[in-house]
Amino acid sequence: MRYLLIPLILALLAVPTGFAYIHWSKSGPGAGLYSRHWSPDPVQGYWDPDSFYQSPDSVQGVFEGEQCIQCHEGITPGIVTDWRQSHHARSDEIVYCNDCHGNDHQQLVLPTPRICGACHEKQHSEFRDEARYGFPSHVLAMERALDAPHFVDKPKAEVQSCVQCHSVATKCDSCHTRHRFEAAEARRSEACITCHSGPPHPDDETYFASVHGQIYLKEGDGWDWSKTLKKGNYKAPTCAYCHMDGGRHQVAHKSLWKFGLREVNPHTSKNQVLRQRWIRLCSDCHQEQQATQWLAEMDRERKQAWEKLYAAENVLKDLRADGLLHPAASERPPYPMDWLDKIWPRERIGFFEGQASAFYNVSGIERDYFEMWYFDNLGAYKSAAHGNQAGVAEGHQRLTAALQQIEIRADKLRGLAEAERKAGIRSHSPAELWLNGEYTDHNREHN
Amino acid sequence: MRYLLIPLILALLAVPTGFAYIHWSKSGPGAGLYSRHWSPDPVQGYWDPDSFYQSPDSVQGVFEGEQCIQCHEGITPGIVTDWRQSHHARSDEIVYCNDCHGNDHQQLVLPTPRICGACHEKQHSEFRDEARYGFPSHVLAMERALDAPHFVDKPKAEVQSCVQCHSVATKCDSCHTRHRFEAAEARRSEACITCHSGPPHPDDETYFASVHGQIYLKEGDGWDWSKTLKKGNYKAPTCAYCHMDGGRHQVAHKSLWKFGLREVNPHTSKNQVLRQRWIRLCSDCHQEQQATQWLAEMDRERKQAWEKLYAAENVLKDLRADGLLHPAASERPPYPMDWLDKIWPRERIGFFEGQASAFYNVSGIERDYFEMWYFDNLGAYKSAAHGNQAGVAEGHQRLTAALQQIEIRADKLRGLAEAERKAGIRSHSPAELWLNGEYTDHNREHN
Amino acid sequence: MRYLLIPLILALLAVPTGFAYIHWSKSGPGAGLYSRHWSPDPVQGYWDPDSFYQSPDSVQGVFEGEQCIQCHEGITPGIVTDWRQSHHARSDEIVYCNDCHGNDHQQLVLPTPRICGACHEKQHSEFRDEARYGFPSHVLAMERALDAPHFVDKPKAEVQSCVQCHSVATKCDSCHTRHRFEAAEARRSEACITCHSGPPHPDDETYFASVHGQIYLKEGDGWDWSKTLKKGNYKAPTCAYCHMDGGRHQVAHKSLWKFGLREVNPHTSKNQVLRQRWIRLCSDCHQEQQATQWLAEMDRERKQAWEKLYAAENVLKDLRADGLLHPAASERPPYPMDWLDKIWPRERIGFFEGQASAFYNVSGIERDYFEMWYFDNLGAYKSAAHGNQAGVAEGHQRLTAALQQIEIRADKLRGLAEAERKAGIRSHSPAELWLNGEYTDHNREHN
Repeated sequence: MRYLLIPLILALLAVPTGFAYIHWSKSGPGAGLYSRHWSPDPVQGYWDPDSFYQSPDSVQGVFEGEQCIQCHEGITPGIVTDWRQSHHARSDEIVYCNDCHGNDHQQLVLPTPRICGACHEKQHSEFRDEARYGFPSHVLAMERALDAPHFVDKPKAEVQSCVQCHSVATKCDSCHTRHRFEAAEARRSEACITCHSGPPHPDDETYFASVHGQIYLKEGDGWDWSKTLKKGNYKAPTCAYCHMDGGRHQVAHKSLWKFGLREVNPHTSKNQVLRQRWIRLCSDCHQEQQATQWLAEMDRERKQAWEKLYAAENVLKDLRADGLLHPAASERPPYPMDWLDKIWPRERIGFFEGQASAFYNVSGIERDYFEMWYFDNLGAYKSAAHGNQAGVAEGHQRLTAALQQIEIRADKLRGLAEAERKAGIRSHSPAELWLNGEYTDHNREHN
Repeated sequence: MRYLLIPLILALLAVPTGFAYIHWSKSGPGAGLYSRHWSPDPVQGYWDPDSFYQSPDSVQGVFEGEQCIQCHEGITPGIVTDWRQSHHARSDEIVYCNDCHGNDHQQLVLPTPRICGACHEKQHSEFRDEARYGFPSHVLAMERALDAPHFVDKPKAEVQSCVQCHSVATKCDSCHTRHRFEAAEARRSEACITCHSGPPHPDDETYFASVHGQIYLKEGDGWDWSKTLKKGNYKAPTCAYCHMDGGRHQVAHKSLWKFGLREVNPHTSKNQVLRQRWIRLCSDCHQEQQATQWLAEMDRERKQAWEKLYAAENVLKDLRADGLLHPAASERPPYPMDWLDKIWPRERIGFFEGQASAFYNVSGIERDYFEMWYFDNLGAYKSAAHGNQAGVAEGHQRLTAALQQIEIRADKLRGLAEAERKAGIRSHSPAELWLNGEYTDHNREHN
Repeated sequence: MRYLLIPLILALLAVPTGFAYIHWSKSGPGAGLYSRHWSPDPVQGYWDPDSFYQSPDSVQGVFEGEQCIQCHEGITPGIVTDWRQSHHARSDEIVYCNDCHGNDHQQLVLPTPRICGACHEKQHSEFRDEARYGFPSHVLAMERALDAPHFVDKPKAEVQSCVQCHSVATKCDSCHTRHRFEAAEARRSEACITCHSGPPHPDDETYFASVHGQIYLKEGDGWDWSKTLKKGNYKAPTCAYCHMDGGRHQVAHKSLWKFGLREVNPHTSKNQVLRQRWIRLCSDCHQEQQATQWLAEMDRERKQAWEKLYAAENVLKDLRADGLLHPAASERPPYPMDWLDKIWPRERIGFFEGQASAFYNVSGIERDYFEMWYFDNLGAYKSAAHGNQAGVAEGHQRLTAALQQIEIRADKLRGLAEAERKAGIRSHSPAELWLNGEYTDHNREHN
């Protein structure tokens, strides 16, 4: 009995201790799980207002309604013009500056989803509902980013770039630009692609290269954007038409291939449900059979991509098995934030072993694989998903070139190891440069 | 006499045997000359309807005229709206759905150039006239692709991408989007660039980067696109204005530099005729002298590009002469489709030896040259042709870098061969990886 | 006394001799300081009319006013339409063709800034005022380019590309397209980005990827572009709104970070003045605090970029100190135009030693650094400056990859040198290929 009691008590103590530790860790001056190690730059106040915005105190006084307008008409006339054209200004119950920003000019607030959600309840709850589908999702974009150890370990100039888009979770003006906030403008694809562009998510490039995107570019300026996102209202689909059909403020409920980040079995019963949602949507304009065949074509594209990715993973796993990845996890300093690596240093190869958190501070060949997976593969996926045929060809050519490069590099590592074993030496391989490179020493000192 | 008769009879037999073989070879379940070895994915039915479209049989009955409209107004209202705005719906003799798709709903057809050509005879015959100029051309895009051995040997995800654009030969809605089919929209550059973009044909990127393209982007939405493509009607030229001047449905009759794929002597009398066509066209807006000098500038750009390309070809030919390209043609498995290579294995270096059909399953340095020729060179060419100066500079920088890379790689191959000869060994060079790579074993198994 | 007199006389003679030499050197048939060694292609007449334009003499006669219009209405109706819509045609005192082009049809001139400036005095003097701020600037674009030795040493296809944009100094239709010349069109961003695009100045790509650019793309076609560039008139800023605020025809007076080309101390009192100009401008729409924090964020981005660049420079300087850069300056032929290098051959590493003029005809690792500095770094800078977050991340990833590449290459050079010293040999390193490459022998022969 006694032998059971002690572990039981320890286990019961461990739970609150864990929670207490997380609470303590999150309550530092910075942000996220590592708030005691990492602080964002001041401009973060504009991206995550709830946590970091500091009102300037240059103007004293309490103002409301037309008082704000009178003054700002002279100081920042552009935003007043935008507001005048908004529903906020033209509805019966006018929504004034102070309704969202507060009326004490030394304690101004920037609106967050919570504040907007006080009136726009449906949209806000749909937006929050994305959390059910996990990450990637908009609503979890900021917290999951800041809680990832690699995120706060990266060079700050890069991380601040990431955070700027991940702020889609913490403010609504990522899509609805200030101060007009029209549905009409958010329905246009440009509303999405300030963030959804460039590697690793070339939604911009791939959509606009498709027939859908080209029709939009030719004729979109003449469409009536006040119409809702339902069939018959638009000649060609936009980002929102497909991903937020019917105006639903969550994009995850048809998310079948998981951004291309991991292999998906498209035939599970759950995924069959998601697929049917796509087919129903495509059928707004196309034959159901065409939608079905397109999606099957995409399954094939994904399968070919993953065959190449797994081939590359296997090359890396064989090297790992033979002790040929240098610096090995045990030979290099762990990320400051990475506790697991301190306890159990291990090469994590592939998505399921957690390579997504290991794309810096690794050997050169592992970085090659990261780029193959994160850039070439996702480029091919987005192209297939958005109907950009040239992008599929380019993506697969790059996947193949990357696989070749990895095989050649592995061959060299094996040849070098063989030669060194014969000669009885152990050289400093160039790969070790990652050990003292940008992403380790430097970041620890400068972030 | 007898000695002549036997070869004569054999020769006479060979001709019909050859035709019979080709007929047999083309009559398989797949497509093209290799139809017994390769079948397209089901979605091909939407790209090459004559050969592969299977009507869904979900709806029974025979319908015509307003009957189709009534039903589809509810099912797919968008395409009905498009049709209502088309000439088909607004002319005195209304062209209904069934006029192009048939009226048996279980035997629907998708319109092909032949079907459209029944009414639009002039456009159809101009389109077919391109065949006189050979390939590249729109009208031969599908058949020449499917008959090329390398095409059906490539990884399927890539080939299906290629075929999607090459379907410009087998359907008209590549340029005239369903179901409005307006000349006005096809006159805009976006109609062309769904296909004409990305390497190796960055027409999109290079046109829009030019002054012509920038004027179009600034002001094009305000132009009256119902006007025909003749001088005075447009402030700046579009793709169609120059390449389909006067609305002519064939783009080959001014094709002087052959897409940049091979060196062209610009001074043959035939090319002088083509050049005069360009000068006449440019003179719609510019001084004749300016057009002449621009084209001469382009001759110079091409000359410098080909000097670099030939320098690289010579490096490869020297390596071939010294037996230093590995795997050599005789050492690697031929493409399944490539009969010539089985009989006469040979490194084909450069366009005129047929390298266009040898860009996979080759040594690394040959692939380098392929990329130099097909991507860097064509990028520079399209930039020069479309007036995108930054692209010319970038293309030539990349050509130079590629030439350097090839020279360095050749130097290494020679050094390695020298070292191995001294040591009396013969290693497996990393280049051999292409032998067992993606583009050989894998494709044979999976395509 | 005598001992002083001789040097004094020699010194006094040297000054006029120097001037005489420069005058003689500039007075050759070509252009710029090296006009006796280098001549532009004929098309240059359209880019630098004052120096090179030759009127065609095909039409004889003296024409003016409506006479020109009558004829050109038939020959080039498009440009007549443009002119009719211009202020030139619609003002009380009509500006006819001959007012700018002259009236002798065999002695036509193309308008230059001087000719346009005869009427548009304010704009012309603002434009010329940029010269006070040195280079980069528009007004010095042509002469500084042609006077740089590396410029006329580069392959001609590239140089002609460069010159086409640098012609912004020698004609006004780079921004105001012929023959409408409306302020309205020059206010749009497309007016700038024909030149300001592509590496090393991706202003196009980075602006349009920003929220500012996306708003412009969505809504810009509906804005009233006849409005002046002052606060309240536009929902989002364009190139001109920020860089030519108030319509001022010089963009240098807020130029703080010097194009990203060199490290700038942002805290000098002079730069504080420039910064205040930016903050005042941003405050047209944003909180002053936000502008201040954004600019501070940009200081940080620049600092991180320069830390990487200096790390790479140090790698190169160490190699130079150890005599490991081959071919060394003394081992390779100098540029034909580079007198300094003949007298004092020296690896020039980094901006301040003059590497900007040494980006060809150098060792491979020096070229690597050039590309890191000129392409990767400037891409990151422009992204940060224009609010394109994905571009900052990409730029810094590329800077890091380049730094790694340089470190690995340096490691190899050291290893090779060590091995050769032990073996008592001195090999021809692949880097020597630059010695006989495109940018040296070839250019000398062909430019």
